[in-house]
Amino acid sequence: MELLTTNNVWMMICTALVFFMHTGFAFLEVGLTRQKNTINILFKNIFIITVGLLLYCLVGFNLMYPGDFNGFLGFAGFGLDAEAALDLTYSEGYTYWTDFLFQGMFAATAATIVSGAVAERMKLGAFMIFTVIYVALIYPIAGSWHWGGGFLSELGFYDFAGSTLVHSVGGWAALVAVSLLGARKGKFDKNGKSLVILGHNIPLATAGVLILWLGWFGFNGGSVLSADPALTSLVLVTTCLAAAAGGIASFIFSNILYKNFDLTMFLNGVLGGLVGITAGADQMSPTDAILIGAIAGVLIVLAVALIDKLKLDDPVGAIAVHLACGIWGTLAVGIFGELAGWEQFSTQLIGVASYALICIVSSYLIFFTLKKTSGIRVSEKEELEGLDLHEHEMNAYADFRMNEH
Amino acid sequence: MELLTTNNVWMMICTALVFFMHTGFAFLEVGLTRQKNTINILFKNIFIITVGLLLYCLVGFNLMYPGDFNGFLGFAGFGLDAEAALDLTYSEGYTYWTDFLFQGMFAATAATIVSGAVAERMKLGAFMIFTVIYVALIYPIAGSWHWGGGFLSELGFYDFAGSTLVHSVGGWAALVAVSLLGARKGKFDKNGKSLVILGHNIPLATAGVLILWLGWFGFNGGSVLSADPALTSLVLVTTCLAAAAGGIASFIFSNILYKNFDLTMFLNGVLGGLVGITAGADQMSPTDAILIGAIAGVLIVLAVALIDKLKLDDPVGAIAVHLACGIWGTLAVGIFGELAGWEQFSTQLIGVASYALICIVSSYLIFFTLKKTSGIRVSEKEELEGLDLHEHEMNAYADFRMNEH
Amino acid sequence: MELLTTNNVWMMICTALVFFMHTGFAFLEVGLTRQKNTINILFKNIFIITVGLLLYCLVGFNLMYPGDFNGFLGFAGFGLDAEAALDLTYSEGYTYWTDFLFQGMFAATAATIVSGAVAERMKLGAFMIFTVIYVALIYPIAGSWHWGGGFLSELGFYDFAGSTLVHSVGGWAALVAVSLLGARKGKFDKNGKSLVILGHNIPLATAGVLILWLGWFGFNGGSVLSADPALTSLVLVTTCLAAAAGGIASFIFSNILYKNFDLTMFLNGVLGGLVGITAGADQMSPTDAILIGAIAGVLIVLAVALIDKLKLDDPVGAIAVHLACGIWGTLAVGIFGELAGWEQFSTQLIGVASYALICIVSSYLIFFTLKKTSGIRVSEKEELEGLDLHEHEMNAYADFRMNEH
Repeated sequence: MELLTTNNVWMMICTALVFFMHTGFAFLEVGLTRQKNTINILFKNIFIITVGLLLYCLVGFNLMYPGDFNGFLGFAGFGLDAEAALDLTYSEGYTYWTDFLFQGMFAATAATIVSGAVAERMKLGAFMIFTVIYVALIYPIAGSWHWGGGFLSELGFYDFAGSTLVHSVGGWAALVAVSLLGARKGKFDKNGKSLVILGHNIPLATAGVLILWLGWFGFNGGSVLSADPALTSLVLVTTCLAAAAGGIASFIFSNILYKNFDLTMFLNGVLGGLVGITAGADQMSPTDAILIGAIAGVLIVLAVALIDKLKLDDPVGAIAVHLACGIWGTLAVGIFGELAGWEQFSTQLIGVASYALICIVSSYLIFFTLKKTSGIRVSEKEELEGLDLHEHEMNAYADFRMNEH
Repeated sequence: MELLTTNNVWMMICTALVFFMHTGFAFLEVGLTRQKNTINILFKNIFIITVGLLLYCLVGFNLMYPGDFNGFLGFAGFGLDAEAALDLTYSEGYTYWTDFLFQGMFAATAATIVSGAVAERMKLGAFMIFTVIYVALIYPIAGSWHWGGGFLSELGFYDFAGSTLVHSVGGWAALVAVSLLGARKGKFDKNGKSLVILGHNIPLATAGVLILWLGWFGFNGGSVLSADPALTSLVLVTTCLAAAAGGIASFIFSNILYKNFDLTMFLNGVLGGLVGITAGADQMSPTDAILIGAIAGVLIVLAVALIDKLKLDDPVGAIAVHLACGIWGTLAVGIFGELAGWEQFSTQLIGVASYALICIVSSYLIFFTLKKTSGIRVSEKEELEGLDLHEHEMNAYADFRMNEH
Repeated sequence: MELLTTNNVWMMICTALVFFMHTGFAFLEVGLTRQKNTINILFKNIFIITVGLLLYCLVGFNLMYPGDFNGFLGFAGFGLDAEAALDLTYSEGYTYWTDFLFQGMFAATAATIVSGAVAERMKLGAFMIFTVIYVALIYPIAGSWHWGGGFLSELGFYDFAGSTLVHSVGGWAALVAVSLLGARKGKFDKNGKSLVILGHNIPLATAGVLILWLGWFGFNGGSVLSADPALTSLVLVTTCLAAAAGGIASFIFSNILYKNFDLTMFLNGVLGGLVGITAGADQMSPTDAILIGAIAGVLIVLAVALIDKLKLDDPVGAIAVHLACGIWGTLAVGIFGELAGWEQFSTQLIGVASYALICIVSSYLIFFTLKKTSGIRVSEKEELEGLDLHEHEMNAYADFRMNEH
């Protein structure tokens, strides 16, 4: 009972920290885009966390953790189970309520990743419909395959805190959405050369990354599912070292390639390191963690360049951070983890491929249907003048004079 | 001893989270008002938390928890009690020091609620005098009636974490202050039509709401007064679901009424849900919590319209959020709570009325006296040019060019 | 085991809170300087926390806690010790991993203090070299003298959480750096009169102070090195009361001297109170804490004036806050602490002098060498046009129009 109390305290704090990540995402996305779309991004962020929790309560939790099931799809019924909630032997690590809330905070994250990638040009209504379907159905069904005890956990696939189950699940949908949406006006010139569209509030973007790093204390630390002192503290150390190594590697590599001191790349390197360590944060030594983070940092620089080459327009770098480093982190478990080796590596590959399949297919279906019906992209005029004016009739900074551009 | 340690850790974290709410209030109030009054608002926020803690140490704590007393007014003496502090059997849930600090963080909140409502036109000196009296005397005396074991707890009144004791106590004073102050220049045109005065930094306002929500993990979670795993985790679930439902209900209802996607209303709906669940967060099922939150969200939209109709000018919506939803949450205990029924409902009504009485009378006396002596409203010139220039000779954003208006 | 789990949970949370202080420092430094140097400051902040953790892992931790050593300099080898990490009897208060991470978060703080003082004119490359040397070598060696069990702890010197070991260590280097760098163009007119250079984002500066205060819950609370309920909660109370008293004293004293309501001074007073209580937060009564904080608040006002008189240009007030109040807090242990008296006071003086010696000498050597080789100050043109443009080719607020000045 005393141990349950302590464990549960830790899990509740981790839940609060993961909740706080939504402030980090909001700051990051707002900061790296233009002021004329700020209200729209904030609106999406608030929508995601509120509707996400309600949907996870209504269907998500019981889709993701259906109990005994066929390994691909199960459902334990609508709403929460008040009887399970009374049973304090539900788990040694947390109560039923904590379990629901911690997992619920994760659920909304996947949609948030997409939010950043489609910023500045996607219709609000279409995005809200996507969010509802993805958070209510796709994220929890995909999650059940491993964390719910489904076929991938039977196979031995391992993803500690969600390099794949959360970050890639968001990242794949971001990739599909960005492909179907097309680039923002002015992102590529008529020769196809990528132009820089500057973010409008870099202090908020930087604070967003620091808040996300803080949130990762809970994201990874809580994924131990108890306050086990050796394991939770190891996880915090590997998480922080990977973040630090990711940032430094990104900064140095981009400095070598481009001879600059690029803050945005530094920040994305930190996030890449965090995403990269997430699949194996409980299995790595400090040296492993630094290596995994550093490789993620280098990968970010390459992925950003590649995505640009492919004429994909991802304003906040979400695909490089969450998809590329999510895949890398998942594979790294097969290289550095406890059961490292060809067998584990190929199982990790199977996992990555399975999630690619469900996420690409489902998000393509959703976005394609929306494109053919309501449309997914705002008008050229609306894009030019900003979504804040047209979708919200508001201005994020009413008192400040803006540059005309 | 081990349980005390765990409980106390939880209570200290909750204390930290409630402290963090002051950052949330600062961001919210600053973001929803004009840049020319930013320094003034920040100054008030810093004043409230610093002077609030010192006053609660000097008199507040011993007024609010006087031990055995007549149920209306008691006082256990000035300052803190070092002997009680040595006694580790003081409570199973926390030490004497934690008790003081957790309650002290609550005390400042009531004055902060008023700060937002009177923004952009109240004299700084007058506001500081009000704050000192209200935090030192009115809040703790009113608090003693229920949490200190006074006559309302004898009657069976129930307010778990302060829908009435904190939020309405602030809200009533805000209502009185706003009535005596009058509206900002330009808020109503000569036909009495309400005009929109836009806030100047919506990313900060949004972050403020998310930080307040995070702080509510501690505000409600800590009001369990121990780390009891079942109860604390239930409280976090009801708190978060009510916040989510409040936001979504506000957004949908205002979308139906006004055909817009109003971020400010969405944000106030979240806060309304949080205030609404606060009185009964430990007694509700998830479904109850969603209902209470959703009703609070609808109420916000109606209350904002009503306050506008009454020609009251509340720049941040404090009265709608903290007073209207505070009353609703308190009454909801009589509708959904463990002892729901006509008896409990009427007891809740008596409680609401008692707090209305002490708060309206006392804040009217304070503000009226101030109005007749030092004055409570800045000059027209000062209001036009901004309180930052006149009261502080500072500019919150020196490097940015401002619109003239 | 259960107690270790609880203690370790507390220590991990405190680690997270100290990490969060880097967001506070970033906001404070950015807010109090001009927008044209914002990216540069943020870059330095992210560099410090990432490189700081990696260096502390590589050498710092084992320099600071070398085990048995001669009391002046010891080194337990490169990298972390995986065997110690497996030993759960390492300490009753925390695991090996938590120990490393908590101390690692402290290490970066010293360099951050310097970052603010040299803002707006120091070369990025030179600052990065200084940071690497200071964080990797000077901070941990100096730390070993007391916290590592070195000669100062043998002498009876006492610094609970780092008024000297962290804040003065940063403050001395800031003083040396500022002396060698010279003032920003435009800070003093040709008659040597100090002019005001306004900060560009005061809401962020204010939030920075509130976040730092929140972080101090972990900075001081975690320095108990366990979750001992009586001691941790006392520490939080003394910390918060000193912060409150520091702010109020600064505000009142500066109001008396200058007849203004100066928000910046209020904020620095809060920080001064926090730095001042840090050396003895575990030994003071509430009354002591209020006195120590209030004296620190008055000291800030005087120190800011003195530093100005000396033609030293410290854009964020780092020397007044971290050095002056760091010294005051350390001496206060000899005046108010458990062993207060002439003997303790003189031991505290010896400690202060020892740290002055190592910090002044080492930072002078580093900065002087850099000055004679790579140079430490940017060109006049670069300073005028901003470091963001020249060192980073970025703009922190691309969409906003700036005043020309």
